[in-house]
Amino acid sequence: MVAPLTGGPGPVGHTDRTRVRRLPELAVRERATLHAVLDAGRVAHLAIVDGDQPYALPVAHARDGERVLVHGSTGSRLFRRLAAGAPACLTVTLLDGLVLARSAFESSMNYRCAMALGRLVPLDGTAKLAALERLAEHLLPGRWAQIRPPSAKELAATLVLALPLDECSVKISAGPPDDPVDDLDRPVWAGVVPVVETYGVPQPDPRLRHDLPPPEW
Amino acid sequence: MVAPLTGGPGPVGHTDRTRVRRLPELAVRERATLHAVLDAGRVAHLAIVDGDQPYALPVAHARDGERVLVHGSTGSRLFRRLAAGAPACLTVTLLDGLVLARSAFESSMNYRCAMALGRLVPLDGTAKLAALERLAEHLLPGRWAQIRPPSAKELAATLVLALPLDECSVKISAGPPDDPVDDLDRPVWAGVVPVVETYGVPQPDPRLRHDLPPPEW
Repeated sequence: MVAPLTGGPGPVGHTDRTRVRRLPELAVRERATLHAVLDAGRVAHLAIVDGDQPYALPVAHARDGERVLVHGSTGSRLFRRLAAGAPACLTVTLLDGLVLARSAFESSMNYRCAMALGRLVPLDGTAKLAALERLAEHLLPGRWAQIRPPSAKELAATLVLALPLDECSVKISAGPPDDPVDDLDRPVWAGVVPVVETYGVPQPDPRLRHDLPPPEW
Repeated sequence: MVAPLTGGPGPVGHTDRTRVRRLPELAVRERATLHAVLDAGRVAHLAIVDGDQPYALPVAHARDGERVLVHGSTGSRLFRRLAAGAPACLTVTLLDGLVLARSAFESSMNYRCAMALGRLVPLDGTAKLAALERLAEHLLPGRWAQIRPPSAKELAATLVLALPLDECSVKISAGPPDDPVDDLDRPVWAGVVPVVETYGVPQPDPRLRHDLPPPEW
């Protein structure tokens, strides 16, 4: 379904490059949904080109208003290319379930996928430090106040980049299998098997010196 | 740690493009590990370039010996580019845990990441059908025998592509935080919070006509 546009700097999927052509009924145009998908993801994949070779790099990310923050090492050739303004694509994909249809063709996955195209901008000074805090808080809310902030040397070894959410698309596949009527009598179970990401039992660092409880989230 | 090379068509990480430069101690060179990471992943991200714009596309994948299979629609512009032999990168990232260190700089994630560079080759005829079976069996072992195989029309609407595992890298980050000794006295819990993917309660299709049990895995 294509939902109505909502506020933000611009609509989602408004350019030729971000309009969803395949299965356009799965396209979503609300910025709130774009934000929700980016916020729910723990890992993003950044596409970047070096020569004629594209790479898909996994990165930690965090949304900060209408941009996405990432960080990497100054020692990474691809991160230095990103910092220099090379075109990039950041994709966050959340797998929600396996769709067990009665045919091979309709068997699929339920997912939410957000994609943002553009060029990343390096951050410095207080903006860089604030972005690192945002990145930590995305995964570990409340933790920034407890840990040692980066030293000048650590900051100098880190690139922090921001990708404006100017040109984005969101695609959501949800619900039961879409088998044609002719297949409904097949004697095979059909439905959705949800895929759920949870936390396991925290494993204390063997060097932990304090008898502290693990985090609660 | 860099493990010894093992069998297969060639070593992992043997080219300039796949040698792990950043944190080379995380590089793995065993093909068995490459295979294990690809086999454990449910979603891959394919990087591909269109003009000067790279894209990172989520895809279902399956390893078949020394190649990775993917499929997509003939209606997808990017998939048609892949089928035409455009350079690509397929990345599978498994998030294993959040690493809670005593400093922002050492806070990170434990993960396994496999990356394969190359050009995809379209499959046809019986090879195409066998690849679709392999793709279904990767996610849903045993299911192919129960469901309706693709019709000629469905096959014609599907591109099935194979990426040879000729140029690959694998990087694994595991274990407790790597805090410097000076930080060990900070009164904050440190360790790893595992991230675990599980299946939820199967949701039967509302149109299910048979009183069949859901799959067991």
